Amino acid sequence: MELTNLSMAIDNMWVLVATALVFFMQAGFAMVETGFTRAKNASNIIMKNLMDFAVGSLIYWIIGFVIMFGVDKAGIIGTGSLFSTGSFEHLGLGIPVSTFLIFQTVFCATAATIVSGAMAERTKFKSYLIYSFFISAIIYPVVGHWIWGGGWLASMGFHDFAGSTVVHSVGGWAAVVGASIIGPRVGKYGKNGEVNTISAHNITLGALGVFILWFGWFGFNPGSTLSGMAFESTGHIFITTNLAASMGAVVAMAITWIKNGKPDVGFTLNGALAGLVGITAGCDIVSPAGAVAIGLIAGFVVVFGAEFIERKLKIDDPVGAVAVHGLCGAVGTLMVGVFATEGGLLYGGGAGLLGVQATGVLAVAAWTIGTAFVLFKVIDLTVGLRVSEREEVVGLDIEEHGTSAYPCFYTKAKGNTSPQE
Amino acid sequence: MELTNLSMAIDNMWVLVATALVFFMQAGFAMVETGFTRAKNASNIIMKNLMDFAVGSLIYWIIGFVIMFGVDKAGIIGTGSLFSTGSFEHLGLGIPVSTFLIFQTVFCATAATIVSGAMAERTKFKSYLIYSFFISAIIYPVVGHWIWGGGWLASMGFHDFAGSTVVHSVGGWAAVVGASIIGPRVGKYGKNGEVNTISAHNITLGALGVFILWFGWFGFNPGSTLSGMAFESTGHIFITTNLAASMGAVVAMAITWIKNGKPDVGFTLNGALAGLVGITAGCDIVSPAGAVAIGLIAGFVVVFGAEFIERKLKIDDPVGAVAVHGLCGAVGTLMVGVFATEGGLLYGGGAGLLGVQATGVLAVAAWTIGTAFVLFKVIDLTVGLRVSEREEVVGLDIEEHGTSAYPCFYTKAKGNTSPQE
Amino acid sequence: MELTNLSMAIDNMWVLVATALVFFMQAGFAMVETGFTRAKNASNIIMKNLMDFAVGSLIYWIIGFVIMFGVDKAGIIGTGSLFSTGSFEHLGLGIPVSTFLIFQTVFCATAATIVSGAMAERTKFKSYLIYSFFISAIIYPVVGHWIWGGGWLASMGFHDFAGSTVVHSVGGWAAVVGASIIGPRVGKYGKNGEVNTISAHNITLGALGVFILWFGWFGFNPGSTLSGMAFESTGHIFITTNLAASMGAVVAMAITWIKNGKPDVGFTLNGALAGLVGITAGCDIVSPAGAVAIGLIAGFVVVFGAEFIERKLKIDDPVGAVAVHGLCGAVGTLMVGVFATEGGLLYGGGAGLLGVQATGVLAVAAWTIGTAFVLFKVIDLTVGLRVSEREEVVGLDIEEHGTSAYPCFYTKAKGNTSPQE
Repeated sequence: MELTNLSMAIDNMWVLVATALVFFMQAGFAMVETGFTRAKNASNIIMKNLMDFAVGSLIYWIIGFVIMFGVDKAGIIGTGSLFSTGSFEHLGLGIPVSTFLIFQTVFCATAATIVSGAMAERTKFKSYLIYSFFISAIIYPVVGHWIWGGGWLASMGFHDFAGSTVVHSVGGWAAVVGASIIGPRVGKYGKNGEVNTISAHNITLGALGVFILWFGWFGFNPGSTLSGMAFESTGHIFITTNLAASMGAVVAMAITWIKNGKPDVGFTLNGALAGLVGITAGCDIVSPAGAVAIGLIAGFVVVFGAEFIERKLKIDDPVGAVAVHGLCGAVGTLMVGVFATEGGLLYGGGAGLLGVQATGVLAVAAWTIGTAFVLFKVIDLTVGLRVSEREEVVGLDIEEHGTSAYPCFYTKAKGNTSPQE
Repeated sequence: MELTNLSMAIDNMWVLVATALVFFMQAGFAMVETGFTRAKNASNIIMKNLMDFAVGSLIYWIIGFVIMFGVDKAGIIGTGSLFSTGSFEHLGLGIPVSTFLIFQTVFCATAATIVSGAMAERTKFKSYLIYSFFISAIIYPVVGHWIWGGGWLASMGFHDFAGSTVVHSVGGWAAVVGASIIGPRVGKYGKNGEVNTISAHNITLGALGVFILWFGWFGFNPGSTLSGMAFESTGHIFITTNLAASMGAVVAMAITWIKNGKPDVGFTLNGALAGLVGITAGCDIVSPAGAVAIGLIAGFVVVFGAEFIERKLKIDDPVGAVAVHGLCGAVGTLMVGVFATEGGLLYGGGAGLLGVQATGVLAVAAWTIGTAFVLFKVIDLTVGLRVSEREEVVGLDIEEHGTSAYPCFYTKAKGNTSPQE
Repeated sequence: MELTNLSMAIDNMWVLVATALVFFMQAGFAMVETGFTRAKNASNIIMKNLMDFAVGSLIYWIIGFVIMFGVDKAGIIGTGSLFSTGSFEHLGLGIPVSTFLIFQTVFCATAATIVSGAMAERTKFKSYLIYSFFISAIIYPVVGHWIWGGGWLASMGFHDFAGSTVVHSVGGWAAVVGASIIGPRVGKYGKNGEVNTISAHNITLGALGVFILWFGWFGFNPGSTLSGMAFESTGHIFITTNLAASMGAVVAMAITWIKNGKPDVGFTLNGALAGLVGITAGCDIVSPAGAVAIGLIAGFVVVFGAEFIERKLKIDDPVGAVAVHGLCGAVGTLMVGVFATEGGLLYGGGAGLLGVQATGVLAVAAWTIGTAFVLFKVIDLTVGLRVSEREEVVGLDIEEHGTSAYPCFYTKAKGNTSPQE
């Protein structure tokens, strides 16, 4: 037996366990997005979450992976054979390509699924499938190539360890474009511009989703070492990840408590996610104290960012996905330039890294917003992006899928079942 | 330190992590079966799921394991001491027996728990416990011996890597026998033979269950290598598993969309499970493209199979367990003979392997259907298999357990609680 | 590459995977505690669970870890620098300190979160946060130092492998003190001393929580080896853990069936947890048969213990946390003295180990009850421990957080949403 076989087995196992955990984040997103929206659209949201993973897995295998990790062309895009069949020796991987492919597949699906929350309760199912196809095939893989596939941002020294920008901000920017173009839900904004709250239907499930996401993040961030041999890093990454999430939750809670007199449940849960998104870029190279600082900043960003989006921009994002993934993804990536213990502004590294980080954040925002704009506009002008007002009022479950997630609630309307049934 | 210790530690860790994931599939089954049936029977289904695991774990340790993996007797059955205490050196394991035992225990429990869904909402709790005892003690271990314990099918070269036949089809065949003997739920079929839909009470939880099962399958299939050192295989198995599940979901959705005009939520979820069950037998020796093909076939089988069972055979299977686990388990096992990259029909291997696969599928079906028939018939004639019609109408939660899973729903009936309570 | 790097990578990976699983137990506790209480308090319980983890993670990193694992002072307490920054070479760890820290953090959070269930539905959120701070900063770490940090109980040979006493009994004793001081929920006990049942609002979610906890326990117990190289132990620990849980569930079910004529769902679920808590102390050094015996004993303890607490002591513990974690933690620790295959009473080891175990159990009970009493009394006399009766009747979700977990339920009261919304 060769020693390299042992170390490769260790690395391989590490990445596959992380893959399973990151896959499970799909359940977390499904519960968060369903729980935080209305009962009449629950099945529809479930279907969108399931399908962006299923469609995304197939498309990423067919085309996305090679665009992201194929042979570099001008720093912009990867090239090679379809169906992930070419050689990937240029990557110099320490794990089998198959393991790397499945790990990257679940990352791609994470970016894709973020959008369903922001566009929930009013998007045509068919149109959502088309969106899923293109984000997994092109929008996400190109960004991934720039940063993780040896592209131009990688060459500049841009640091995004596990994807605050690659994964979360891509999802967040696509979400803000989609939510803007499709417009707010019926009743969200009154005639005189007042902002109405549309309640979550099941906070318990939403909270379960947040716990599942936090759990999955222990695959997302430490797994991005791509190496179980990196034992000096992986425990550290667990700690920074966990501290940032904890601080994000505490800060978001405290802000709402001070502002509104009561600690808000939704924002506290989103505060944990904000901390997780924020720490993802720098979890490997900030200290525990830096992680706490990033969590604190993310807590502020998510509360005030979500309010700004909802009240000033009048963009209706039912689950706060834009603030959590877009804003905290961007801010977290910038904070690497501040808190990195080697090269960060606060550690005597000057503003160089911060400049590179800002360049990457802006470039990814520009690319994603641009392509998502074209994509959603074309969908809107062809098959249409939005369901009819009648469908929206009745609920997408009945109208789009012919079912209800909780038929017990419909007792009187349908007259044929009792709650006991 | 010896190198063999390192590789054994790696293999051991791999199998134990997989064990935990496969255990967690119990939660997935519980949520799928509860979510897809009615609120009045939710506690009862939970109890059956919990108890088939608890009883099964004890029984498999006492007797099942030695029947499955004891010293072979005529290719039919394993023999040795009770309580898993004998020597298992003849297995030539690369991991400790204790690790192998717990891994096999959670597999046994998976087979057992499949049946509770098909017989849901009308089976006596006591009778279900008796069934659980016998499937874990005898029915499953004998099949397991034939295929994984060095029995006659193993000798023939039958290939069922992680249990499409051993686990899923055994559960599925026992389910179809149980559901047939116990008969349909009250109101399922009208006087003139019309088929009524009895709604799921919580599709959100059902979907959560599917995500949990998919997550657990990343232990089920890759864990069946029994080796973390097998790094050339494990990533590949993740990919085939994931692609088949994705394709199964997409295809089932597409079929229902074309047939009924709307993409069906329940069938799409079951399509993912169908792909997972289907790929389980050959996940190690089919290509990614083969996995997609198997997922596609499984998607067809689950939709048309479930309809055939419900409408033609008039067997009432509330959650579609027979189609998912029985039919897709059988078809997936056969497809190994077609898609195996070495020995498969499409790869120039002739019909030999396909013939062996067919032999195994039929033999296991015959054994399971035969023994399950005797078992359920004897239970029916002694303690009785089915609750009274009154109990069924009121709900098994109240009648069998003196509780309700959601007392809020019973406000008016009981008059002593308000929804807020 | 050095061999020690390989074995450290294996150990490190094992502990980190276990850390993720133990973290996920937070979701389990949240679902159990929410599901087993009333809908009007669901968000509040979620917030308490989330916050004791978030606050606890921060505090344990700041001060708890050094109290538990710093340089020993008189066998009582650890000393060193704040923020977990000092040297921990005296521990002689085989894994990086960062990995050990995050593993210990999730253990601390487990102890803290146990209390929220026992004090559910009537405790001020603010007061709960104060409690969380002190249990994570002082109460738990001191006990941890005595037993796992080289303190006086460790010197005596006290054996608590994964924390029946360190984690669970600390949570359980703090819970019984808190529940006593705060008093029963409105309506729990009638004027003539009769005991009323206050129903769980969602048994399905409660059961999901139990499955999640059981899953997480496969990190809790085997992870406590702190070594993936310990392959002779880890599989064994999986088996003892699983058998005790299974037997606990079966026995609790059987007792309620015999006593009340129907198998009780809540007690069966708690029976599984009782078995898990009971086996935690000795999972490494009892045989599988010993584990079954401990599960059996735990099943009895949880049923009769919970009834004694509810009916004789008149302490209102909505989820049975005191019986599960306190009583079964204590009894399970004592049983190590009986069933340990080396040194146990039944194996010819005399009463020596049993005496040591009893000393530890009593000392931890005395410390925890004493400090928790002071803590809760001081909170009660300053900020107040309990919400007003009006708040309790209306529900803590509305009163403390301005929300409802399930707004659909409030249709008539609020008049502005229909169930479909």
